[in-house]
Amino acid sequence: MRRIITLTTDFGLADHYVGSMKGVILGINNGAVIVDVSHEIPKYDIVRAALLVSNFYRYFPKDSIHVVVVDPGVGSERKPIAIESDYGIFVGPDNGVFSTILEQDCSVYEISNPSFMLKDISSTFHGRDIFAPAAAHISRGADIQEFGETLSSPKILSFRDPQVLDNEIVGEVIHEDSFGNLITNIPGEMIGKVSQIIIGDYVIDTVATSYQDLAKGELLAIIGSSGYLEISVNQGSASKLIRSNKITVKRSL
Amino acid sequence: MRRIITLTTDFGLADHYVGSMKGVILGINNGAVIVDVSHEIPKYDIVRAALLVSNFYRYFPKDSIHVVVVDPGVGSERKPIAIESDYGIFVGPDNGVFSTILEQDCSVYEISNPSFMLKDISSTFHGRDIFAPAAAHISRGADIQEFGETLSSPKILSFRDPQVLDNEIVGEVIHEDSFGNLITNIPGEMIGKVSQIIIGDYVIDTVATSYQDLAKGELLAIIGSSGYLEISVNQGSASKLIRSNKITVKRSL
Amino acid sequence: MRRIITLTTDFGLADHYVGSMKGVILGINNGAVIVDVSHEIPKYDIVRAALLVSNFYRYFPKDSIHVVVVDPGVGSERKPIAIESDYGIFVGPDNGVFSTILEQDCSVYEISNPSFMLKDISSTFHGRDIFAPAAAHISRGADIQEFGETLSSPKILSFRDPQVLDNEIVGEVIHEDSFGNLITNIPGEMIGKVSQIIIGDYVIDTVATSYQDLAKGELLAIIGSSGYLEISVNQGSASKLIRSNKITVKRSL
Repeated sequence: MRRIITLTTDFGLADHYVGSMKGVILGINNGAVIVDVSHEIPKYDIVRAALLVSNFYRYFPKDSIHVVVVDPGVGSERKPIAIESDYGIFVGPDNGVFSTILEQDCSVYEISNPSFMLKDISSTFHGRDIFAPAAAHISRGADIQEFGETLSSPKILSFRDPQVLDNEIVGEVIHEDSFGNLITNIPGEMIGKVSQIIIGDYVIDTVATSYQDLAKGELLAIIGSSGYLEISVNQGSASKLIRSNKITVKRSL
Repeated sequence: MRRIITLTTDFGLADHYVGSMKGVILGINNGAVIVDVSHEIPKYDIVRAALLVSNFYRYFPKDSIHVVVVDPGVGSERKPIAIESDYGIFVGPDNGVFSTILEQDCSVYEISNPSFMLKDISSTFHGRDIFAPAAAHISRGADIQEFGETLSSPKILSFRDPQVLDNEIVGEVIHEDSFGNLITNIPGEMIGKVSQIIIGDYVIDTVATSYQDLAKGELLAIIGSSGYLEISVNQGSASKLIRSNKITVKRSL
Repeated sequence: MRRIITLTTDFGLADHYVGSMKGVILGINNGAVIVDVSHEIPKYDIVRAALLVSNFYRYFPKDSIHVVVVDPGVGSERKPIAIESDYGIFVGPDNGVFSTILEQDCSVYEISNPSFMLKDISSTFHGRDIFAPAAAHISRGADIQEFGETLSSPKILSFRDPQVLDNEIVGEVIHEDSFGNLITNIPGEMIGKVSQIIIGDYVIDTVATSYQDLAKGELLAIIGSSGYLEISVNQGSASKLIRSNKITVKRSL
């Protein structure tokens, strides 16, 4: 049965881990369409995984199954879960990686039924032994309600919102992407008319409409593709220039 | 509808960018076969992207759709384009990444019709908002002529040809691959009978027929898999040894 | 024809090599399901490739075709081979990368029939010119026995077994994974009741049942997901701490 299963992990691609997960999935449903989202989440970085999930899930078909394995607590008491939501099914550890999904209307099930796991469960690789088979069984039409009990209080990370005063917004950099763009927690629609943006030792006077509004190498502020204020350098890296995580937007009244 | 869409970008795999593009494609045509070519083009390196495209496109089925997003001018006046050629459809920015294709017989269309884009277009991520949906619509049979006006003077990069004298060819290194092979702009068929190949401080007397013609660690010249002269080290890296970009082939008469 | 072809190489993803192989495969069988296992094998590292293969192949459907290209001897006299086994078909160079498979019941064929290759064979890229087309033809139902002669003595690497005395096992670290876990050649079932595990300057008293048995940053021993003893640091990297490859397990009697 053709169905999309996406993979997001901190496994990297140098080892057999991702390949083994793909094998397990295709062994259970050889019609599954496996889509690599990222295997380069920094090791053990649950917050980064949660942010990444929040950025991609809405773009996939709503019957997709999204597997996320950033799981420093593997083998401990943290539970494996499957989440049924309006945006598809999410499978992974109950450690906060699905925070954005869990803040919406959804049902959360513990994965405890061994019928949907590999026969032997290692204590270090639930990606292969629990999450991959769970996703593959779902892709073949397994009823997620048979996976286990409903989980009433799944782990949700709290992300700090920016602080807003009359003419000032104080936010923070929540992610540096691989281009060196500094992505903040300040939504574009919150900004209004800007008089100054202050980050570290730098002051920016305006919000650009494209990277090339400024000369190559110039620092700029822009509303990024996820809708948040970003600090960038045209064809360069803002993260190499700026060490501060604090960003202040002064609005003109 | 089953159809191949390849992806070549400078996005890396640590962020959500590639995953979001894949979601958009599968949301429009869930029968698309997405093929990752490379997401490790050096950031903003249009020349490298153009070279990479020139090396892989001929090996794909001729109805493939190739999306290339190395796009430092995103959001500026550079145009999004779709190219119809004997070797398939190419989708990306009009900045030179498709130079090899454009030197052949082909038709170039600006992508300006919003019916083939996402509803909201960011100024920083046309890969997701314009190029991915354009490719997906083409893969479902959309008529490329409805995308927009014909573009008469697309951007073509000029690559320097080697200079040929009677018994000497002077070329240059145009790419260092991840093995440290130095790939030059001198076509194998141009070389003839070699008396000396000079690069930096090194002189090579002959063109090898395999890396293992020489001992491990030895420098060698060979006709590489793209048909051009390469300088390599057997099981080592020529790029660690040699800093010069200039290469001279002396032919015996 | 839908059939799984996995790819494991040392090509990295920055160049066109992997993309060209995928194009060749899809050009011969556009129903092939290409699965990236890893392209980050360290350059020329046949031993690492053999270990990686040994870890993933059993998880794939048994009619999968596994292509492995870590091939420092490309173009020399080492032979291209295809292996028919109970766990699927394996295609790559005869240099030891398939050691685990070859130790089992299987048939090995040299790939010498040009009908199953590209028309032009480079001396540096058999992944594209020989291995990819061979795998693609097999996926379309080509008879592997027509590829060439049977090979009677394929290359098999010998991996050192741990030395076992009455109350002591002396093994070695055979792989550092990307998390910094040190994976040894000591099978979990060999261990019994542990009194001490000694590696470098460190002594560990017990085998943990999960990484989180110990505090964050603490060194631990655990039976890893491949069934072998591993040395790890909870949410850290054991390979940054420990330089020794020798590991001694003292068993209590």
